Amino acid sequence: MTLEAMGQLARKSSRLLMQASSEQKNKALQGIASHLWTERGPILAANLLDVNAAAQAGLTPALIDRLTLNESRLTGIIADLVNVANLPDPVGEQFEETVLANGLQVHKQRVPIGVLAVIYEARPNVTIDVAGLALKSGNAAILRGGSETLHTNRALISIICRSLAEFGLPPAAIQFIDDPDRARVAELLKLYEYVDMVIPRGGASLHKYCRENSMIPVITGGIGICHLFVDESADLTAALPVIRNAKIQRPTVCNALDTVLVHQNAAVDFIPRMVEQLSLDSVTFRADPLAMRILAGFPPAGVLPAGPEDFDTEWLSLVLGIQVVSSLDEAIAHIAAHSTGHSDGILTANDAHARRFIAEVDSAVVYVNASTRFTDGAQLGMGAEVAVSTQRLQARGPMGLRELTSYKWVVQGNYHVRE
Amino acid sequence: MTLEAMGQLARKSSRLLMQASSEQKNKALQGIASHLWTERGPILAANLLDVNAAAQAGLTPALIDRLTLNESRLTGIIADLVNVANLPDPVGEQFEETVLANGLQVHKQRVPIGVLAVIYEARPNVTIDVAGLALKSGNAAILRGGSETLHTNRALISIICRSLAEFGLPPAAIQFIDDPDRARVAELLKLYEYVDMVIPRGGASLHKYCRENSMIPVITGGIGICHLFVDESADLTAALPVIRNAKIQRPTVCNALDTVLVHQNAAVDFIPRMVEQLSLDSVTFRADPLAMRILAGFPPAGVLPAGPEDFDTEWLSLVLGIQVVSSLDEAIAHIAAHSTGHSDGILTANDAHARRFIAEVDSAVVYVNASTRFTDGAQLGMGAEVAVSTQRLQARGPMGLRELTSYKWVVQGNYHVRE
Repeated sequence: MTLEAMGQLARKSSRLLMQASSEQKNKALQGIASHLWTERGPILAANLLDVNAAAQAGLTPALIDRLTLNESRLTGIIADLVNVANLPDPVGEQFEETVLANGLQVHKQRVPIGVLAVIYEARPNVTIDVAGLALKSGNAAILRGGSETLHTNRALISIICRSLAEFGLPPAAIQFIDDPDRARVAELLKLYEYVDMVIPRGGASLHKYCRENSMIPVITGGIGICHLFVDESADLTAALPVIRNAKIQRPTVCNALDTVLVHQNAAVDFIPRMVEQLSLDSVTFRADPLAMRILAGFPPAGVLPAGPEDFDTEWLSLVLGIQVVSSLDEAIAHIAAHSTGHSDGILTANDAHARRFIAEVDSAVVYVNASTRFTDGAQLGMGAEVAVSTQRLQARGPMGLRELTSYKWVVQGNYHVRE
Repeated sequence: MTLEAMGQLARKSSRLLMQASSEQKNKALQGIASHLWTERGPILAANLLDVNAAAQAGLTPALIDRLTLNESRLTGIIADLVNVANLPDPVGEQFEETVLANGLQVHKQRVPIGVLAVIYEARPNVTIDVAGLALKSGNAAILRGGSETLHTNRALISIICRSLAEFGLPPAAIQFIDDPDRARVAELLKLYEYVDMVIPRGGASLHKYCRENSMIPVITGGIGICHLFVDESADLTAALPVIRNAKIQRPTVCNALDTVLVHQNAAVDFIPRMVEQLSLDSVTFRADPLAMRILAGFPPAGVLPAGPEDFDTEWLSLVLGIQVVSSLDEAIAHIAAHSTGHSDGILTANDAHARRFIAEVDSAVVYVNASTRFTDGAQLGMGAEVAVSTQRLQARGPMGLRELTSYKWVVQGNYHVRE
């Protein structure tokens, strides 16, 4: 099938799905969940083909691990899907009801966006995650998974489509581009008549490619160079576990800490304690000249002078940048220059500083006295997330079901005319 | 200056403007308004250059009229600007405050989008309108006006920039591409590092060009093939003035009526009355075969059989399509096939039909018993509008100040860590 034909089918399916009741959508999601478990045999067999091919192709153990499914992981994926089925349905919600002076009754009503395109890499759980969130919010979706998981994705998509048909929903509401040729992505990004929003889930180069080649609005995000600023008033003993949590709890994700900014009046006390403590967790450091001097007395293994690119690097590993700053202003300026606008915070006892930091740091999520690791749909009470947006349209920060909706205006009158 | 340099300057100005207080922004807007009046002499002189050039180039009187300024029009533009200054400032508004189970305090805070690019055609009032809305909502903007109004726009922009500087705001917050070469538009659309949103204001070809060439999300809209469906239960005497209003009150705009759908059980009674009445207002008609048969008894001048493209045409003039339908379903299907998703309505006394129409017609604004002419920021209580969006991201329908904002998440804790 051509991409154009897939687009047309997606638009048609979207129109039907928009009208589906919450009950119908939930039943279909439960149906998918149940079939995923019943058919775990064929799914895991298909996954084994991908895993073996990956091993033969010489992929790293880490990558192979990312694409591997087993019963326990499948159980987790199914639990997430059931969780999405149980979330409230944003579609149909009415808001901003008002009666105008002329008597017109006006409100807005939440509707699905329409058709989503999601482009992602290895992990097969994304296929189910995204399908679940799209269906629950009444959106059709065209998925483009990584070629490494083609067999797994085929098995998963086939179950999704059969379940949709079984529950009276259009089976083409979720389509999968079953062709590893990269030219298909370029074609997909041109289908603005049929696709309303593109969500890339992957590294910076995928985001850049989508931005530069898409005729459809792209939700970029998921790239986090994250900062915590230890103000001079911070409770240094309490600050240490926050930095440790932000750095080591899961270093490979976008909301993990990349750079600690330390006020110069706290630096001599705090930096050695931090380096000593986090070294025990195998963290290594890239320190600015001042921090290097402070650490000169006891340079543990793993402290290197920061190079010119280091403060513009998303580490995704147990590396932490250290920069001493002379003031709140300098901390804010450093963040403005180096942050990707994902998650940045201040640790302080000074309310005025907290207020200024909140007002002046222009990131998707701004923290006061908390770990950056809370930038996550589930953590922030949204139930699930489809992406973390660092662009500024439609939604910023974690995007859950509601962020996959648009709205229509409803205007009701009594044969009203405009004067 | 290169477009790249303009983009960098816009981003820098945006960062400063984001921090401006409402008072500061309002004073600057009032200052611009006052300078526009004081310097009306040079403005009108510059406009005369454009008008003369347009006359020499042989532009139509209608086009020349669109780009002509005089004291009375300038007064209107200034009044609109003062109106924007007096609107509430959306920036800084806090919403969705919540305290999570772990004690984290979370809220969202409205912030400017950042940098807007607005590409428009002849009318010089757009320069002031857009600058006013952008500044009030804390956004920097790069404007690209039509070459026909280059002298006028230079005069206006110079006043805006001087006023900004006078009131302590960055003068480059509003920049103007002072080069009629179309290659500059192509360059502008690639500046995704510096521009967050593109708003084309013009015809379908401009929107298409922006969609196909922009690396920045584009707010398409302002193209309306609008429908009213006269249900069999409609009060036909009351329906007539609504259709007349929607068609003739201002036929050149996007929310004007293009096609009337008439239920077959009302057609014999209603269509001749409508044609008779609207013919007095110089409306001409494109009628489907059934309507032609109904009108066979008395074919007034100006009733033609509808051609194959007629129901996909935005008339922007005193032409009205007539289509007889056999049911509500057929009306909804016609709208789904031919509407641009701008403004569509039903005239009915049947509540169930009204509810189905609201649920199933997927347009930016859906009407029950009212003229489509209310699709307008001022009419719907937003004070002003920058565009009417028919795409589905960020905002749909009339876009006012709030629709020019994004938000940041603010998370405040007591040295909270993620478990």
